[in-house]
Amino acid sequence: MDGMVKVPLVLLYSSIICVLYFEWCSLSSQKLYANEKDAPCVWNMTDLNLSLPTVFMITPTYARLAQKADLTRLCQTLMHVRNLHWIIVEDSDSKTPLVTRFLKRCRVKSSQLNHTTPAKSLPPKGSHNRTKNRGARQRNVALDWLRETYKPGDVTGVVYFGDDDNTYDIQLFEEMRYTNKVSIWPVGFAGGLKAEGPICENGKVISWHVAWSPGRKFPIDMAGFAVNLDIILTNNNARFDPFGEVGYLEPEFLSNLTTVEELEAKADNCTKVYVWHTQTRKPRVHNEGKVPTSIETKK
Amino acid sequence: MDGMVKVPLVLLYSSIICVLYFEWCSLSSQKLYANEKDAPCVWNMTDLNLSLPTVFMITPTYARLAQKADLTRLCQTLMHVRNLHWIIVEDSDSKTPLVTRFLKRCRVKSSQLNHTTPAKSLPPKGSHNRTKNRGARQRNVALDWLRETYKPGDVTGVVYFGDDDNTYDIQLFEEMRYTNKVSIWPVGFAGGLKAEGPICENGKVISWHVAWSPGRKFPIDMAGFAVNLDIILTNNNARFDPFGEVGYLEPEFLSNLTTVEELEAKADNCTKVYVWHTQTRKPRVHNEGKVPTSIETKK
Repeated sequence: MDGMVKVPLVLLYSSIICVLYFEWCSLSSQKLYANEKDAPCVWNMTDLNLSLPTVFMITPTYARLAQKADLTRLCQTLMHVRNLHWIIVEDSDSKTPLVTRFLKRCRVKSSQLNHTTPAKSLPPKGSHNRTKNRGARQRNVALDWLRETYKPGDVTGVVYFGDDDNTYDIQLFEEMRYTNKVSIWPVGFAGGLKAEGPICENGKVISWHVAWSPGRKFPIDMAGFAVNLDIILTNNNARFDPFGEVGYLEPEFLSNLTTVEELEAKADNCTKVYVWHTQTRKPRVHNEGKVPTSIETKK
Repeated sequence: MDGMVKVPLVLLYSSIICVLYFEWCSLSSQKLYANEKDAPCVWNMTDLNLSLPTVFMITPTYARLAQKADLTRLCQTLMHVRNLHWIIVEDSDSKTPLVTRFLKRCRVKSSQLNHTTPAKSLPPKGSHNRTKNRGARQRNVALDWLRETYKPGDVTGVVYFGDDDNTYDIQLFEEMRYTNKVSIWPVGFAGGLKAEGPICENGKVISWHVAWSPGRKFPIDMAGFAVNLDIILTNNNARFDPFGEVGYLEPEFLSNLTTVEELEAKADNCTKVYVWHTQTRKPRVHNEGKVPTSIETKK
């Protein structure tokens, strides 16, 4: 009889603790907690699965009107992805308070780095970013940081170069997560096409769907491939040439690491689009300064 | 002794069940399940809290190159919001397969409606959408749907008009959730300003930060207010005038429902920006059709 009383009581207690824990987690999640040390609970039971490879996403960013909006919606996308480490590299002399505050609120594990592009290497004012290889130096800084931080074999992971105004379907990260060497898939709105990328069969690249400069060895956009972390860690020449020709950054980078034959086809044999090269239109703020404001637009 | 053995066993069993349930939930979440009937589990313990008001988000949409990308990142934002019901109204003669398929994958409770804007009311090709009141008819269709579907008192909720290319910080939805009549806050990149909106004190609107047409009674963007569901259900004249002047749609709509004195100030007394009127640049696909493709860009 004593045992009979104890059993439902213990059950009740453990159930209550369990419900309360997840209730607390979900309530806290409304407050958008920040990095590793601030995260108040294990958000996702599968995060405990240490065998799940980590996605290291490298994102160059720079100060502009829509920066906070672009970073905010990207953060909210990445919050769905398990075991993701977001490496943000600002194009600036020092870490900006806007990005520091943003990352503190964004509930994604992150590292904030910075590196200034010399003025002469910046695209002319008002021109499209792709007229110069903006972001190359920042991606190299992140690659160096990875090589300084991890030794080969330390962590199972994959490295991905994801700009801050692209659109990512979260399925993309599950496609790239298990990459032995280099994986590849199509990118929407790249190369003047609705989607540019490899044509694949049985997990291998057999040809390319490309209109612009099809002679390139790897005619692929920055957002269209991922590299196993150990390949990055064991190849000091895994870096981008900031003086390279536009559109040839990716082919040159990949040529140092792999062959077309070795590429691992993802996204249902390269038939699905899970990432789009979207761009946010420059906001029109022609009335700014005409009226005083108390609204915080700099945070 | 018998009881001593039973207690840890029961504890172990209940713990295993609990862990397995959440493990299953989080694993399934990677697969992006769709609407109500497909949702395989309670994603969030607080969804069980029936007293949490529902956010009815009304989103007009239309076929264009970036539609799927824009809807995808918006879906991934809304997936974080508890008790949200997304009402998508397509500007088309019938429900398009692209949006139907998209909503089946998007793990947000949703309803798909449609209504065609007459050709003569569409903005001229290549012009900015705001030159005509695009979306007014679609929002009215959603408001009528709400009035047909619910009776006053049926559901505690709030109605919000959120376009598909805006950027939303998920905190916005918690700000608007408890709205007695009409709540209000600033909107980034509206009215030619970094942020346009009310100036507030002690939860009330005392003035406006506005440069364009400041004489309007409610000089506020569509994304800058929310209305209690019962106000919509009990006011058949809560609708937008598709022939109204651009920028006067919102003031006219609100004039029928409330006064400036009654407005409930949100977002830290209207000092924070949680929504931005971003726009996605029209993708450049000038090479499309020049090369055959096997990539699915129409789904």
